[in-house]
Amino acid sequence: MHFDLSGWRDYRQRLLQDDLLAALVVSVLLIPQSLAYAMLAGLPAQVGLYASLLPLLFYAALGSSPFLAVGPVAVLALMIAQTLGLAPAGVSPGEAALVLAAEIGLILALAAALRLDALAALLSVPVLHGFETGATLTIAASQLPVLLGSPAQGFDLPTILQSAAASGWTLKPVTAAFGLGALALLVLARQGLTPVLARLAPLLLLLCMMALAWRSDALGHGVSLVGQLPPLHLPFTLPRLQAELWWALLPGAAVIALVGYVSSLVVAESLARRHAQRVTPRRELMGLAAANLAAALSGGMPVAASFSRSVLMSDAGARTRVAGVLVAFFMAMAMLLLAPALAWLPKSVLAATIMVAVLSGLKLGPYAQAWRYARPECLLMLGVTLLVLCWGVTGALGLGVLGSIALLLQRTARPHVALIGRVPGTEHYRNVGRYQVECQPGVLGLRIDESLLFTNVRNLSDVVQGHLDHHPEARRVVLLMSPVNGIDFSGLEALRELHDTLARQGVRLDLSEVKGPVLDRLKASDWQRWFKGRLYLSHHHGMVDGLQQAPDWVSP
Amino acid sequence: MHFDLSGWRDYRQRLLQDDLLAALVVSVLLIPQSLAYAMLAGLPAQVGLYASLLPLLFYAALGSSPFLAVGPVAVLALMIAQTLGLAPAGVSPGEAALVLAAEIGLILALAAALRLDALAALLSVPVLHGFETGATLTIAASQLPVLLGSPAQGFDLPTILQSAAASGWTLKPVTAAFGLGALALLVLARQGLTPVLARLAPLLLLLCMMALAWRSDALGHGVSLVGQLPPLHLPFTLPRLQAELWWALLPGAAVIALVGYVSSLVVAESLARRHAQRVTPRRELMGLAAANLAAALSGGMPVAASFSRSVLMSDAGARTRVAGVLVAFFMAMAMLLLAPALAWLPKSVLAATIMVAVLSGLKLGPYAQAWRYARPECLLMLGVTLLVLCWGVTGALGLGVLGSIALLLQRTARPHVALIGRVPGTEHYRNVGRYQVECQPGVLGLRIDESLLFTNVRNLSDVVQGHLDHHPEARRVVLLMSPVNGIDFSGLEALRELHDTLARQGVRLDLSEVKGPVLDRLKASDWQRWFKGRLYLSHHHGMVDGLQQAPDWVSP
Repeated sequence: MHFDLSGWRDYRQRLLQDDLLAALVVSVLLIPQSLAYAMLAGLPAQVGLYASLLPLLFYAALGSSPFLAVGPVAVLALMIAQTLGLAPAGVSPGEAALVLAAEIGLILALAAALRLDALAALLSVPVLHGFETGATLTIAASQLPVLLGSPAQGFDLPTILQSAAASGWTLKPVTAAFGLGALALLVLARQGLTPVLARLAPLLLLLCMMALAWRSDALGHGVSLVGQLPPLHLPFTLPRLQAELWWALLPGAAVIALVGYVSSLVVAESLARRHAQRVTPRRELMGLAAANLAAALSGGMPVAASFSRSVLMSDAGARTRVAGVLVAFFMAMAMLLLAPALAWLPKSVLAATIMVAVLSGLKLGPYAQAWRYARPECLLMLGVTLLVLCWGVTGALGLGVLGSIALLLQRTARPHVALIGRVPGTEHYRNVGRYQVECQPGVLGLRIDESLLFTNVRNLSDVVQGHLDHHPEARRVVLLMSPVNGIDFSGLEALRELHDTLARQGVRLDLSEVKGPVLDRLKASDWQRWFKGRLYLSHHHGMVDGLQQAPDWVSP
Repeated sequence: MHFDLSGWRDYRQRLLQDDLLAALVVSVLLIPQSLAYAMLAGLPAQVGLYASLLPLLFYAALGSSPFLAVGPVAVLALMIAQTLGLAPAGVSPGEAALVLAAEIGLILALAAALRLDALAALLSVPVLHGFETGATLTIAASQLPVLLGSPAQGFDLPTILQSAAASGWTLKPVTAAFGLGALALLVLARQGLTPVLARLAPLLLLLCMMALAWRSDALGHGVSLVGQLPPLHLPFTLPRLQAELWWALLPGAAVIALVGYVSSLVVAESLARRHAQRVTPRRELMGLAAANLAAALSGGMPVAASFSRSVLMSDAGARTRVAGVLVAFFMAMAMLLLAPALAWLPKSVLAATIMVAVLSGLKLGPYAQAWRYARPECLLMLGVTLLVLCWGVTGALGLGVLGSIALLLQRTARPHVALIGRVPGTEHYRNVGRYQVECQPGVLGLRIDESLLFTNVRNLSDVVQGHLDHHPEARRVVLLMSPVNGIDFSGLEALRELHDTLARQGVRLDLSEVKGPVLDRLKASDWQRWFKGRLYLSHHHGMVDGLQQAPDWVSP
């Protein structure tokens, strides 16, 4: 970080106005969401407010994106709820949440120190999207009982259904009326109102519903309310140091750290591209680490960047990370003003807020696109979605990553060795099966369409031999190596075996268009001791080399 | 399988003689090895003989290679010993070995039915070689106490050393004299004698040592002998059906099946290549499955192809799988003749046989080659070796496979995007950093040196943008796609993002030399709805397309 004061002077003159407006718009959305996501995570409502103060300041100090709206996030809240269930008995959810935030902060800081930002690549698009959809549906399902006043609980579909069945599918009519009424108004607001009013709608609705609950004596009618908050002052405490507790939450913390980081990075990159800016993945790691550590020390919960609020931040015109600082300021104001009234807020109204917020981000298009483009990846996406819904987030993500790796291995395991011929009149060579090309008797031109890796070299000799069986007159094989981006040790052995097998039949193996980095590695090995063929810079030179007369091109 | 009787008539006339000779030579080696490897596996000596009868017939009926010498194998014996240690109390090693062989047979049959022969690719050369070396050293270490008459036991280095220390490093001098004497004679035989005599040496030595032990009253001197064998008749029994036992041995069975199959396949392929023949991996799976099931039903132990005996089979001139049938016949003869004398065979002599057999196959060259060619793969090889020595075979192989996959992911995770220019006067394009080439202002030619996969596309836009920052005058980017062998769903998304990011800056993205299979997949998706660039069959056409005047080549 550098503190360029001339930049700061510029800032005051030009950008404060933009950042102020964006911060105001985002705060209006963050107030209801912070309360709702704390409830979703199974934590007291004020925890969501605490997590929207200091963490934002620390992200602004260390992060790199001006658009990321850090704070409580719905998907993380679901994962937090599932992880807190693993805490040992006798630890309150609030205490466990602080430990979890501390662990996430430390994991992210460690990842930044060890430069592990590349691990973000483990989450492929199908896994990430399948996970987000599954989490969205799970969140919506978990809020349905709250919305309708059912005593059912749970953070996966089977548990929720069992719990609802055990309670005899009972509902509370007045609670449901509040919830469904809020849901209807929110949906209408999204569709009917101008953008500005639509953004104000959740906060306005909250205020109206609190007033209504107070006037109608909702508590007397059995409606669950958020209830009296304790005196709001930021609690500065060290998280509880209990080995058993830290150990129990560690796997969940690792997964939440990965998901929080990757989803934040995806948002940051996508918004940066819109503004022709660049994101520094390591800076993001450091910013999120600081934000989570701040949450752990100030009574909050684990935080990350919210997709919906970050898009809003960008659309509303935020220019610098000062916008995040201003959001924290507005949140502190709101906390002081709203606290007394929150006691009257029905939980079913918060549930409606959550459902509308998450379901409005539901995207089913990628399933159809993946189905058309790559069936196995679509099945992976669907599988992850179903696993999240029915089993839990951590296991689903783990299996999803393994599935991605298996598909990658399967992809590299299918080498494609094509017989290639010359496009007549040119020096370009193309697959004999796809193009009208011409070949030369006596020289077999083959193209290997994959790096030579342990997953695919076991039958390299056999495949080449198969082509040779159809052209027994060939005395040379020229391998076009331009698609070979790497050769591992198993590949080197296979190349040597191929060379020796061909040599035993009196056929010479030549290589053409070997890539620079690949050739450097080969030359570092002892390959020059056994390789008797020739290297050509161009495949065409390899095909016509050593001919006594003009080449005799024939159709294959 | 087809039974071509005319082929059979040919067979009798021409090949019987060759097969007979090879079978005789292999049997002479197999007799001592079968006894020794049964002992190594912690089983009674006769189990090795039983495993050398029916399994050979069944492999001959269903397998495909004329050279594979199926039967007890040293490396498998070590794995069997480690696995049998996991059997529940109250089950004899012999019973457990039958269940293990049955499981291995069923796993291989299942793999053949599901066409899983491609899973062989999971074992890369570094893992396989590191494993074999580690197993060789472990076997030698485990036989050292037997050779010297120490009571120490164990199948990994720490256990053997602890056990020897616990026994106070005691030895039995007469036992050690037999063992070291046999060892010295075997080593001398390998070095000093003609090949024919050298091959006979182990069997002759066994006979001499039995006679010597009988004459010198070895038992009275405290030498451990193989002891009286039970009446030798092939026991036909179903393996014990006990769920707990089957379950306990299953992981070991899966690993032994994989190792047995892959090591047999490697031998079969290498020998087939020498004779310009081909191996059918699925036939090998079926042959080994049948051989192991036969072992399970006839009192044997798990079997696979032995490297040393298979090479001998090939060198001695075997022509068809009848050679294996003849080996089984000679083994049956030997069993009847030798059984009474085996009682007098000192175990330390068998230990010497094992040590010479396995250590003669030790190869350290690949470590040096891998060190020069690919440091991380060499470290993987060394790591697997050490893990096998100190921890056990199953875990070492598992970690080795994970290590190979991690290296593969790391390899695909490093995309290399090169700025390319024209080799003057040609239509060939090469890396600007490596060759003397020329570029064209206004058009940026880039080559992507890797398939576009989820592991490497996260920063594709950034890398291209980096090149573009150095050439702000460019209005087109032409991506040379010939090294791109595949695009997964994450890659498709990244390509779209790159396209849109460039479009926002008024830069058009074109693609050149897209491979046929890649283009087919792209066309199946909705890419034509968003892709506004052009496709070129040749990169050069892409670079000069749409120019109003002759191209203006400059040095980059």
